[in-house]
Amino acid sequence: MEKIYITYNQIHNTMKDLSEQVKASGFNPDLMVAIGTGGFIPARMAKTFLNIPILTVGIAYYDLDDNPTEKPTITQWMDQPDKQIRGKKVLLVDEVDDTRATIGFCLDELKKHEPAEIAICVIHNKKKKKKHEIPDWINHYFIGENLQDEWICYPWDAEDTDMQDKLSR
Amino acid sequence: MEKIYITYNQIHNTMKDLSEQVKASGFNPDLMVAIGTGGFIPARMAKTFLNIPILTVGIAYYDLDDNPTEKPTITQWMDQPDKQIRGKKVLLVDEVDDTRATIGFCLDELKKHEPAEIAICVIHNKKKKKKHEIPDWINHYFIGENLQDEWICYPWDAEDTDMQDKLSR
Repeated sequence: MEKIYITYNQIHNTMKDLSEQVKASGFNPDLMVAIGTGGFIPARMAKTFLNIPILTVGIAYYDLDDNPTEKPTITQWMDQPDKQIRGKKVLLVDEVDDTRATIGFCLDELKKHEPAEIAICVIHNKKKKKKHEIPDWINHYFIGENLQDEWICYPWDAEDTDMQDKLSR
Repeated sequence: MEKIYITYNQIHNTMKDLSEQVKASGFNPDLMVAIGTGGFIPARMAKTFLNIPILTVGIAYYDLDDNPTEKPTITQWMDQPDKQIRGKKVLLVDEVDDTRATIGFCLDELKKHEPAEIAICVIHNKKKKKKHEIPDWINHYFIGENLQDEWICYPWDAEDTDMQDKLSR
């Protein structure tokens, strides 16, 4: 599988472009929900351009007792979801739409808190078989770049930043 | 006031160094608590080297109804703090120790959940008058760099990443 190396600056600029797309779309989010931990960095970058608060959710494939789980498991959720989500326009941010298992799970969970609307924003979407359809109540799905099913090496996983920059496109 | 420009790669490398310091200290954190939104990016960088989960707390100087507040206000907290914090060794991560108001507030709030221990980790500490003392029950305080009371321009706030790189040391 081909590896694609991405730098922090490239992602920062993608989040700047995506923020412009969000603004141009007419969807006017009240807040972001960043899916942890992959969504933390892109959401914070986008905050500079969208100037809205960030809430986070932690999703992992292990539970709070450290047992591995097959399905996405909540490691952290909002503490006051009715106050924080109900009636709000939410921009759900993650780094990648891979199998869409995590994003699909988060959409279903967030929907329970009755937001006014949810839109999705990812740096990368992989063109591959997905475990979830995008629900028909989603009007906006913002994608920085569509990729094949490649191995994306994000800068935050790099041991050596100089090497990461060198290997990037 | 002098402005200091920092690149993403510089911060990534600082978080790598800080992670080595944490490991060398004998303090063996179970998890990080990232103070949002400034702690999101450094915590995610450190995760690569520490390989522990990240919980987040949101602290702002406005409340959930968007009214400005003088004191730090919680915009998000853990949803299951007893399960998530009690008995755990917590590494509290933020970008900067400025007046220490936010960090001091978080220490007090986290302490209520009876963690086994809390250590602090920041990219930058400013040498200036603080609003909180470091409590005597804190054994470890990891600092990437001590600065005077300068204006730190973090890369995530940059409009233009090329300019940020050029202006950095």
